[in-house]
Amino acid sequence: MAAFDPGSIRALTFDVFGSCVDWRGGIVRVGESLTKRLALPRTDWGALANAWRRTMPAQLDKVRSGKMSWTNFDVLHRMSLVDVLAEFKLTLPDDAIEELADVWGWLAPWPDVVGGLERLKKKYIVAALSNGNVAVLVGQAKRGGIPWDAIIGADMVRHYKPQPAVYLMAAGMLGAKPEHVLMVAAHNRDLAAARNCGLKTAFVARPTEFGPDQIDDLEPKGKMDVVAKDFGDLAAKMGC
Amino acid sequence: MAAFDPGSIRALTFDVFGSCVDWRGGIVRVGESLTKRLALPRTDWGALANAWRRTMPAQLDKVRSGKMSWTNFDVLHRMSLVDVLAEFKLTLPDDAIEELADVWGWLAPWPDVVGGLERLKKKYIVAALSNGNVAVLVGQAKRGGIPWDAIIGADMVRHYKPQPAVYLMAAGMLGAKPEHVLMVAAHNRDLAAARNCGLKTAFVARPTEFGPDQIDDLEPKGKMDVVAKDFGDLAAKMGC
Repeated sequence: MAAFDPGSIRALTFDVFGSCVDWRGGIVRVGESLTKRLALPRTDWGALANAWRRTMPAQLDKVRSGKMSWTNFDVLHRMSLVDVLAEFKLTLPDDAIEELADVWGWLAPWPDVVGGLERLKKKYIVAALSNGNVAVLVGQAKRGGIPWDAIIGADMVRHYKPQPAVYLMAAGMLGAKPEHVLMVAAHNRDLAAARNCGLKTAFVARPTEFGPDQIDDLEPKGKMDVVAKDFGDLAAKMGC
Repeated sequence: MAAFDPGSIRALTFDVFGSCVDWRGGIVRVGESLTKRLALPRTDWGALANAWRRTMPAQLDKVRSGKMSWTNFDVLHRMSLVDVLAEFKLTLPDDAIEELADVWGWLAPWPDVVGGLERLKKKYIVAALSNGNVAVLVGQAKRGGIPWDAIIGADMVRHYKPQPAVYLMAAGMLGAKPEHVLMVAAHNRDLAAARNCGLKTAFVARPTEFGPDQIDDLEPKGKMDVVAKDFGDLAAKMGC
């Protein structure tokens, strides 16, 4: 098989939550400030963040299977937050629930992200390709200075990853054949689906995405075209 | 009726072709370079550019009416280019036709656009809202340094302006109610449609968009929330 040629790539598409931004750290920060401000009982906000995040596959499945009509990422998160708070026996006033539910638009990028994208975008199109909805992704990018050339949110393609339509529509929107698009993610499942659609794949591990005891996605699985330790390393490997 | 309050606005959406970028100037530039390089017969490229641009309403109507299945802006332009070249009795080699057809992704912004958007984006979301497809808009933005926070191309909403769905879906994607979005354009028809959907409207004249003899869209028609002479003036009027 021919070696991977960065010169064949026109656009890089990036998974966002976990791969570009630290959702767990952001939830913990907001949570701990609520604990202090509202004198809440001691709460393991890291565990709560993981539990909240882990509600999403089932939520997305309801939409993917057609059991639920199209519902945006932020609304799905808000729906499951209520259950997660009950599980952690937390009773919060409405405005605190709103503040937590809004956290997804306020998450900060990992430290290597902005610099790596600035280098990559001199040579390639860099686009967010996320299950998040556009409003959340735009807010996050503005606050964090993430220099996307394009933001493709799930509400623009009306499918959720890992459905093939997402990867194929994104390539089409960027004016590129699938083999000229490099999907970048910290998640093997996302990359396997992209690979099945003919996209090239780059794995960048985020070994503390789920906290210090993370066990999944520490290593790439399956054939990756690029494995990089962070976005600076990715830029270097892409010739930037 | 209450006066317009810039503080009520969350996002500005911009028409692109004509309002932000100079399509006629770009076509003339490419055309004149082809005339020279290929020793073509003398051609009024400004007239050809206008004729080409004026094929679009009928092309878009085929899609809007359902007579033609969804077809991207760049493909529609390529289709009508063949007819326009025949009308101007020009025979071009295939690579020259490709070069002309690709011009839409290479158009330069009017001189006030980048600076005005840089000021506006410190306070508001600034988004392209165009009948162009994303690939064309992304290429143009990268080459021209147009600092969009988000690009909403017609292929993301699968409707063409002035259909109401375009404006309403764009507001939704930006997480804003229609009345918190300001549509900016040099075209009264686009702004009338946005207004009917509940968006606020800003008219910025581009009196030479169609060349020195332009007769349409020299003045705002109907109630505008903002009238500005260029994007710098718009930024000032929006408190930036």
